[in-house]
Amino acid sequence: MTEISSLGEFGLISHLTDHIQTANSSTIKGIGDDAAGLEYKEKEVLVTTDLLLEGIHFDLTYVALKLLGYKAAVTGFSDIYAMNGQPKQLTVSVGVSKRFSVEDLDELYLGIEYACERYGVDIVGGDTSSSLTGLCISITCIGAADKDKIVYRNRAKETDLICVSGDLGSAYMGLQLLEREKAVHQGETDFTPDFAGKEYLLERQLRPEARKDIIDILAKNGIVPTSMIDVSDGLASELLHICKQSEAGCVIYEERIPIDYQTAMMAEQFNMNLTTVALNGGDDYELLFTVPLSLHEKIQELDGIHLIGHITDVDEGANLITRDGTHIPLIAQGWTKIVDEDEENVE
Amino acid sequence: MTEISSLGEFGLISHLTDHIQTANSSTIKGIGDDAAGLEYKEKEVLVTTDLLLEGIHFDLTYVALKLLGYKAAVTGFSDIYAMNGQPKQLTVSVGVSKRFSVEDLDELYLGIEYACERYGVDIVGGDTSSSLTGLCISITCIGAADKDKIVYRNRAKETDLICVSGDLGSAYMGLQLLEREKAVHQGETDFTPDFAGKEYLLERQLRPEARKDIIDILAKNGIVPTSMIDVSDGLASELLHICKQSEAGCVIYEERIPIDYQTAMMAEQFNMNLTTVALNGGDDYELLFTVPLSLHEKIQELDGIHLIGHITDVDEGANLITRDGTHIPLIAQGWTKIVDEDEENVE
Repeated sequence: MTEISSLGEFGLISHLTDHIQTANSSTIKGIGDDAAGLEYKEKEVLVTTDLLLEGIHFDLTYVALKLLGYKAAVTGFSDIYAMNGQPKQLTVSVGVSKRFSVEDLDELYLGIEYACERYGVDIVGGDTSSSLTGLCISITCIGAADKDKIVYRNRAKETDLICVSGDLGSAYMGLQLLEREKAVHQGETDFTPDFAGKEYLLERQLRPEARKDIIDILAKNGIVPTSMIDVSDGLASELLHICKQSEAGCVIYEERIPIDYQTAMMAEQFNMNLTTVALNGGDDYELLFTVPLSLHEKIQELDGIHLIGHITDVDEGANLITRDGTHIPLIAQGWTKIVDEDEENVE
Repeated sequence: MTEISSLGEFGLISHLTDHIQTANSSTIKGIGDDAAGLEYKEKEVLVTTDLLLEGIHFDLTYVALKLLGYKAAVTGFSDIYAMNGQPKQLTVSVGVSKRFSVEDLDELYLGIEYACERYGVDIVGGDTSSSLTGLCISITCIGAADKDKIVYRNRAKETDLICVSGDLGSAYMGLQLLEREKAVHQGETDFTPDFAGKEYLLERQLRPEARKDIIDILAKNGIVPTSMIDVSDGLASELLHICKQSEAGCVIYEERIPIDYQTAMMAEQFNMNLTTVALNGGDDYELLFTVPLSLHEKIQELDGIHLIGHITDVDEGANLITRDGTHIPLIAQGWTKIVDEDEENVE
């Protein structure tokens, strides 16, 4: 265990980043100056940023720092894919309290670096700082897209088909499972929970992937979606973003929402409504997109893409049609977790 | 006082950003999608990021949120100018605890927006989140530079002249002044400290400006520095960065370090060594750069730029020559403030 203070700021930066290489032709200058230098020429530059705070976005009781780093990077990549782009560079800022050692930061960076390697992304900058409490991570991801291929949220048209990749709700059930084990084993310092048969749910929560493969499949088939978004806050919330920005309505069918077997089993065990889990569970990092009706047959042939409904006139609103034919309006959810704090005492 | 939770995540984002317009031709898509879209064509894209944490980088006892927002944005711009570029876009991520109201965030954004307006920068994205404690701000600034005009830290050559803009140490003395007043009035809820005659120090600490004017003057005179960095951690530390990356040494003269009258007065009052203050005081946001010896006369004619020494062979090290001719090796300083935290209790 090496105390961070033993290295000092510049020693720490050097320790964490000296070995980092860059590989993309768009990276001209990486870590080590006032700013990174990039060259995008005729491509459009995409920029997205995420803030991850301990106790709000992650719980280090059951999340290993390496996996946290991996997930932090992947969530950034996912936003770039959701524009039909390719992530190219990443900056990583980290604030850490005295509770963390140099080895802890090594683990975090290992996960980030591994994700970057897998997805072909260069780490080009960042910031390190001490914090009064806990761990704070800020990620900015920069990507490239052909101007005529960029997909926004606001161009879904009436009759367009609504598609989603993978399955939904599994990451949320993974979180429920981890929270339950944490509660059950409260106070125990060393326990081995039995997650047999639930590995998929844990993997979806702890080690999500961004859907580069879906972007590649669409490109290979010459398909440019009319709108796209990644599912980080839940299907309902993301669909409402598309509808609002496209000034459209939508209909999705309960029976068509893709749900994995383990998700269904866990929801039953936890006595939760499976459709609610799939609609509102976050952290899926699947791609939700719309394509013109004319692509109906082509889309159905593609593996891992599910047709779940269609875009309607804005006056019809955004609705789920249940198995028994009932129309239920979709409702958005975002974070609402505002935590109490002693106003006099920030520590 | 409006509680943030009363708006919800999407309501808050909408409240803070709906009115934000973009003005730069390089901004294709601003706030409202998975990522911002930018177009830089033949220009190089510069990216820099900063993390600002309450209790580490700022103290809200004496820093108004509007000024904090202004300073956070300006520090990002400063990094882009230090590459000889022009800042164009900014993303702003904010984590807030329950202690903050919607009106508090309005103040913070007002300061950020005012800085952006003054410097011609578009706000194009960000993230908002709740936090367990305090305020956390992450800023990413994106800028443009002509490829052949970009200035790195690593191209200073022996005999190059070392120049610095403005004056040094004043922001640090402003901080000392604020800290003293805070200590003196501890426990009082309403006090009006007497800052008469020290306004400059406070302004330098609380409302710094980035030296766009210096970049413009250099361009107008056809001067491209051989190396450049902005002075955020103190002159000594920044000079050592240039020397290390350029594999060079340097000599600077104590008597040439530009120091304001108020800084000198306060240092005397506080019984501090003035040169130490100027060498190691942070937050100056001046530009430190080197130019070829042949520009000696030209540089001396420019207002607000001071010639403080020259680059030497690497074997000579980095030295300050005092008024009495003594050589003193320069020493780097970074943050070392690692704060104690109860390991069991992150709140």
